[in-house]
Amino acid sequence: MAGGSRSTRVTITQIAREAGVSTSTVSKVLNGHGDVAEDTRTLVESVMRRNGYHRRPSRQRGTLVDVVLNELDSDWSLEIVRGADEVLHSAGMDMVLSVVHGRSEETRQWLDRLAARRSAGVVLVVSELSDRQRERLAAMGVPLVLVDPVGGTTEDIPTVGATNWSGGMSGTSHLIELGHRRIAHIGGPAELNCAQARADGFGTAMQRAGLTVPQEYVNHGEFNERSGYAQAQALLDLPEPPTAVFAASDLQALGAYEAMRERGLRAPDDLSVVGFDDLPLARRVSPPLTTVRQPILEMSTLATRTLLRLMDGETLENPRVELATRLVVRDSTRRVTGD
Amino acid sequence: MAGGSRSTRVTITQIAREAGVSTSTVSKVLNGHGDVAEDTRTLVESVMRRNGYHRRPSRQRGTLVDVVLNELDSDWSLEIVRGADEVLHSAGMDMVLSVVHGRSEETRQWLDRLAARRSAGVVLVVSELSDRQRERLAAMGVPLVLVDPVGGTTEDIPTVGATNWSGGMSGTSHLIELGHRRIAHIGGPAELNCAQARADGFGTAMQRAGLTVPQEYVNHGEFNERSGYAQAQALLDLPEPPTAVFAASDLQALGAYEAMRERGLRAPDDLSVVGFDDLPLARRVSPPLTTVRQPILEMSTLATRTLLRLMDGETLENPRVELATRLVVRDSTRRVTGD
Repeated sequence: MAGGSRSTRVTITQIAREAGVSTSTVSKVLNGHGDVAEDTRTLVESVMRRNGYHRRPSRQRGTLVDVVLNELDSDWSLEIVRGADEVLHSAGMDMVLSVVHGRSEETRQWLDRLAARRSAGVVLVVSELSDRQRERLAAMGVPLVLVDPVGGTTEDIPTVGATNWSGGMSGTSHLIELGHRRIAHIGGPAELNCAQARADGFGTAMQRAGLTVPQEYVNHGEFNERSGYAQAQALLDLPEPPTAVFAASDLQALGAYEAMRERGLRAPDDLSVVGFDDLPLARRVSPPLTTVRQPILEMSTLATRTLLRLMDGETLENPRVELATRLVVRDSTRRVTGD
Repeated sequence: MAGGSRSTRVTITQIAREAGVSTSTVSKVLNGHGDVAEDTRTLVESVMRRNGYHRRPSRQRGTLVDVVLNELDSDWSLEIVRGADEVLHSAGMDMVLSVVHGRSEETRQWLDRLAARRSAGVVLVVSELSDRQRERLAAMGVPLVLVDPVGGTTEDIPTVGATNWSGGMSGTSHLIELGHRRIAHIGGPAELNCAQARADGFGTAMQRAGLTVPQEYVNHGEFNERSGYAQAQALLDLPEPPTAVFAASDLQALGAYEAMRERGLRAPDDLSVVGFDDLPLARRVSPPLTTVRQPILEMSTLATRTLLRLMDGETLENPRVELATRLVVRDSTRRVTGD
């Protein structure tokens, strides 16, 4: 679809004629008006698709760029917003910030509002659009960049992520090098690519070291503290608990801290703990958390810069980028004793 | 100015005639176009002011509400954004988020962009507008609500803050009740009302308890960790250091933790520490921080709801509101020993 023949553009009139509707109906579909029958909307959209209809790219269509987050619940989201703000404001653009709470209904409403007010482009963070929604953006000529993409690789939409798999490898290898053998993984949502890549990195590091991982040593849940707490409780209840855990997020690692505290246990003496993210609080908690650093701010600035380039009609040589993660060793991990 | 006679509205044509310019020039001034001579802009604005010209209130003018922050650097800002998002998105509005870094140039640029794209209203957080800038918003018919207002009381502009003075009193009284006599204050920027109110609450609590405060026990700086660190260093270097400090922010309190750590000291045994804000990290640091809780999320949602009411043309019975702060006792304070 991308880079299609912009020189021989079809017009709204042609779309209208082919769909057998008025130009004002086509215009309503493009602008997200609610008063178009569902059948008509589907028909018009399919005609636009068939003809490769795209609105002209969009610098001239105002100074608003949409940044869409799933949640606004931690320093992770704060860094994303900061990065986008830096780039947009130096470009003289404004950021429209939306939070969709992982609900498709809220995503739909956001997209309706976007269509009504125009947007020059979208940075979508850890969220998903249906194929239909992506096509709607494309038909409106609104370019899209994904940060930390949730789903499978999505055709030719540019993405910026972190090297989650390598990060999972290095966090786990660190524990193996400290002599740990019974290592568990506190995982994120299995349906998210980033979480699954971290879990796979963990698995590969264990396998390469010739270590077997009991099935009950690998679990999945949300990235939050409560899920980390619950998963750690289950691990500590096992007849043979692990001596170390690699958590898929810092917040989950803090949940593990909490589960240990309740039992009078403490990292790293009773359990070595590695997190993922390196949120600002990772160095402030007690003990300061060993973790795999994600360059969140850089991911966000790169994604936003990429969007500006798309808005200028540039072609990207590298539409899918992963920025390096890096192990940060602090005080929550230590050499295994006994075992 | 507020509540002026909307029934007998002057028109752009009348403004243009009186100012001796074209209507398109008046329109350019209203819309923030750059190509109007400074003298002309000043003239047109003064004629608008003299005639009490206001644009019609603004629900019909789109779904964008501006939220302007000074910084995006802590959970404090995150809570503000979350609160605004909740209210705006349930009202079907979008949030344009801008960060002006305390620079008047960035505020000016933001205001130019706002004028060009229209905005239904503004929530301005810990920031300042010049009289001129406020008048420009008023002339555009864009209502304004201030959160945690920086400067003096600004005529009839609605504000939402926290009971900073009472909070300063209660944080300090807690230390006095624990038997402390040598209590210092790590202050925020003296030019900010919220910081000065906290310092005054501290001073009054000390005075009522009949305690004298040496001049070198009260300092001012930024709300950040570095400033707290520097102020704590100076206090610990005194021939007679305090046994307790009341810091004007949690981050400053954490800076004091750091200064103590460097000297092998620790709260609460060597120094009792009280913070202000109750950021999420306050309960996670070691020792968990005793602090004065600000209802940041509530401040933000109330301010945004107030803005929506203004946009609907409602009259506010209480344009200036302070929400209650509350002492949260954790482990960084203890009864004084010796002295």
